[in-house]
Amino acid sequence: MPKIHDLDTPSILIDAARAEANIARAQAHADRNGLKLRPHIKTHKLPYWAKKQVAAGAVGITCQKIGEAEVMADAGLADIFLPYNILGRAKLERLKALHGRVTLSVTADSRDTLEGLAATFTDTGHPLSVLVECDTGMGRCGVQSADEAVALAKVIDKAGGLSFGGLMTYPAAGRAAEAEAWLAGAKRALAASGLACDRVSSGGTPDMWRSADTSVVTEYRPGTYIYLDRYQVAKGVGTLDDCALTVLATVVSHPTPNRAILDSGSKALSSDTLGLKDFGELLGVPGALVTGLSEEHGTVTLSDNAGLRIGERVRVVPDHCCVVTNLFNEVTLIDGETILETMPVAARGLMG
Amino acid sequence: MPKIHDLDTPSILIDAARAEANIARAQAHADRNGLKLRPHIKTHKLPYWAKKQVAAGAVGITCQKIGEAEVMADAGLADIFLPYNILGRAKLERLKALHGRVTLSVTADSRDTLEGLAATFTDTGHPLSVLVECDTGMGRCGVQSADEAVALAKVIDKAGGLSFGGLMTYPAAGRAAEAEAWLAGAKRALAASGLACDRVSSGGTPDMWRSADTSVVTEYRPGTYIYLDRYQVAKGVGTLDDCALTVLATVVSHPTPNRAILDSGSKALSSDTLGLKDFGELLGVPGALVTGLSEEHGTVTLSDNAGLRIGERVRVVPDHCCVVTNLFNEVTLIDGETILETMPVAARGLMG
Repeated sequence: MPKIHDLDTPSILIDAARAEANIARAQAHADRNGLKLRPHIKTHKLPYWAKKQVAAGAVGITCQKIGEAEVMADAGLADIFLPYNILGRAKLERLKALHGRVTLSVTADSRDTLEGLAATFTDTGHPLSVLVECDTGMGRCGVQSADEAVALAKVIDKAGGLSFGGLMTYPAAGRAAEAEAWLAGAKRALAASGLACDRVSSGGTPDMWRSADTSVVTEYRPGTYIYLDRYQVAKGVGTLDDCALTVLATVVSHPTPNRAILDSGSKALSSDTLGLKDFGELLGVPGALVTGLSEEHGTVTLSDNAGLRIGERVRVVPDHCCVVTNLFNEVTLIDGETILETMPVAARGLMG
Repeated sequence: MPKIHDLDTPSILIDAARAEANIARAQAHADRNGLKLRPHIKTHKLPYWAKKQVAAGAVGITCQKIGEAEVMADAGLADIFLPYNILGRAKLERLKALHGRVTLSVTADSRDTLEGLAATFTDTGHPLSVLVECDTGMGRCGVQSADEAVALAKVIDKAGGLSFGGLMTYPAAGRAAEAEAWLAGAKRALAASGLACDRVSSGGTPDMWRSADTSVVTEYRPGTYIYLDRYQVAKGVGTLDDCALTVLATVVSHPTPNRAILDSGSKALSSDTLGLKDFGELLGVPGALVTGLSEEHGTVTLSDNAGLRIGERVRVVPDHCCVVTNLFNEVTLIDGETILETMPVAARGLMG
């Protein structure tokens, strides 16, 4: 069997057992709390893991782009949620084609989006499920009030080719209670208007772990939980020992005792720190942090006496695993030091 | 002829005439100042532009990874500089294969790197040109003193399969004078040791424009100058009207009068701001800045009365064009509103 030693660098390693354990742990939590899990595949972009997530008990998957959904549908995933405003002739036609192949649901937060959807799906025979996206504090997409949510739900309900599918939000980090109150209020307002709301979809790996069965939320869309990263560890979701994704890098320079340079820069580790101070940390080298990145160089600051050898390989836990997999053409699944399989990141780099 | 209107979003647009003008302008400056230009292809990763750069008068090209160099060699580029410490059996064998096909030069900043190079190239018949990388203030790779540079140059000079090719640096931003003094001192020390140093290679688009023929530097490796971006505009290298690369995006949401959301997030525009405050700006929409990114959403903050339409397409000038092209599978060359050609970003996502 080939070993990690046989790989060139930089490479992405996925500890398969850890990823499987992370899937099982989240599914068990969801089951205990009566929540549906609909994992977001943006993190891995691999049919391999999407199938494992569904096999473990997920009700379906979440994709952020039509291109991702098409790859997953091609691979046999049958229930896909696309929580995005789909606009424009080309994407609407692709959406319509997908609707004929899988159980599909989408979101909208404006009449403009609904007009395009309604015009496209009017003649399909079975309506497209559309959830209303709600801005519960994050300040990204979403209607700004329960009244707006009700108004859009009515538009959906009246459109021939569409059916009102519920509410969707991505809550602001650390403000799940605020989101909960917002959604509960909107659900009451919908009920007062005679509109049933059986599905309330929320997102985010950290929030999922704080959820309980008293929540108005019926499904979660965690993405990062499968691999985890430094940001999730900082949020208390797991430990470094739970992180399934690491970047295998080579020490290419060691100009001073406290500075080593890796062959992994912003085109491998990404500049996306999600607000953390550094860009990654080295496994098994206490205190060794990636403190700077240029495109193909990662600067490691070492504590005294922690010198690395030039040519040595190290494994880096990045801050944000989702944007790291998006930078590579392929990832390698491992079991300890053994390579199980190298597979293309099938759903990356796709337009739309 | 197909038009921009026919493209889906997000897409990268390259204004071909602007890129050609940027190539010509830099080459004219280099010619006036007696400098050799060796453009860094990391910015575009396209044989198409590398050939144009050489046709305009560049002495060769610069690549940062062997994978990039292999793509360029396959496309017929004949003189390639790889300013990187190449380590490990697999990469050294690839380097050796490249050496048989093109005029190749590399760098080293340690005896470890030189040991691998010397062992690999001992039997090739024609020596590999190795420049010594110097840390002239940036704090990345490079020897820390002129004495170290001389010591490594001697090792190279004595190795059978290698020849001493000169000095190389990537200067710290805004500290070109410091780099100049460092390199001049090292060149004097080399001369005192009887080692000729005919090539002194420096990098960085902004510094190139400040160079003059009195410099010890003989060649520059600018990358970004071909496309330009907000960072280069902030550095005074050009204006927004010189920027050849834009990201075509669709407004997918407009939740409040001052907030619009684009379908271009950190997986299209990159989180790499190079220290700028925002992530991009919209052409033709005064004051419209991309103030936040999540993976597939870009948050635009608008000044009063600058409202966009949902479904409208906009063009965004990103902060750092090099990392943006690295996120896409293809780019589209345009002439005004007309599409000239869509081409794959041939040298992206390659390991090593």
